[in-house]
Amino acid sequence: MDKVKFIQRALELAASNVKEGKGGPFGAVVVKDGKIIAEGTNIVTSTNDPTAHAEIIAIRNACKQLGSFQLKGCQIYASCEPCPMCIGAIYWARPDGVYFAATRYDAADASFDDSFIYEELKHEPEVRTIPMTKLLSGNKEAILPFNIWKQSPNKIKY
Amino acid sequence: MDKVKFIQRALELAASNVKEGKGGPFGAVVVKDGKIIAEGTNIVTSTNDPTAHAEIIAIRNACKQLGSFQLKGCQIYASCEPCPMCIGAIYWARPDGVYFAATRYDAADASFDDSFIYEELKHEPEVRTIPMTKLLSGNKEAILPFNIWKQSPNKIKY
Repeated sequence: MDKVKFIQRALELAASNVKEGKGGPFGAVVVKDGKIIAEGTNIVTSTNDPTAHAEIIAIRNACKQLGSFQLKGCQIYASCEPCPMCIGAIYWARPDGVYFAATRYDAADASFDDSFIYEELKHEPEVRTIPMTKLLSGNKEAILPFNIWKQSPNKIKY
Repeated sequence: MDKVKFIQRALELAASNVKEGKGGPFGAVVVKDGKIIAEGTNIVTSTNDPTAHAEIIAIRNACKQLGSFQLKGCQIYASCEPCPMCIGAIYWARPDGVYFAATRYDAADASFDDSFIYEELKHEPEVRTIPMTKLLSGNKEAILPFNIWKQSPNKIKY
């Protein structure tokens, strides 16, 4: 069954990533028309990039492959349930669906606990553990870029 | 006042980004010890990368600059309230604080509405509008990468 084959590839990438010392135990593949078009692993520590989760790398590689910033008609297979950052990335990339093997609870058991990020997202910016503070908000200056965007004739919506 | 200067730089980057046709009206800077060490703008459409939001680019540039996957001692100034993907990235990068000018409501008014992502994150994976489906979950195979990680002597935690 193809779905199992694709998730097994994501798991294989996750395992080899640890053995090769590239980063955390996470892998992902992007599938289109029944074929893997891109792969990714977690390379946070080997590239000094905290955003380099497996899903983000796989999405970026797939978009490069397709010459598009959208993944319509694609499925993402991830070795583990995507974290909130990666879920956000998935919504911006808009694939048709996502499959994952390990759950966030399995991840927490291996010291990758992202439940606090889910909680933080529910709070107002100012009271998060990393405080997010308004500055110039409500001021005309703050929305000037949006006004320039609205009036821009050549904008590419995304 | 330095804080205002930094947020104004983020807003200036956002405005020039639109004028230069690089992407959406968003800019961000990372500050350490009172100095801007990295900048970023939204380059989603010009680089075919749906993850290339201003904050993500600024975080990646700052980490490259510091040779670290963590932003301890840094502040991020963003022209607009970060979206859930970027908030996730911020939690993984761990800066000391974030400042933003336009709010998510200003962004929605300019057709950048990320409120649906906040809502989606509250739902169980299976019932999201992009369905996220378990496959092999609960199976030993699904947690094999985590077991390899736990036993790995050379792992770099992050």
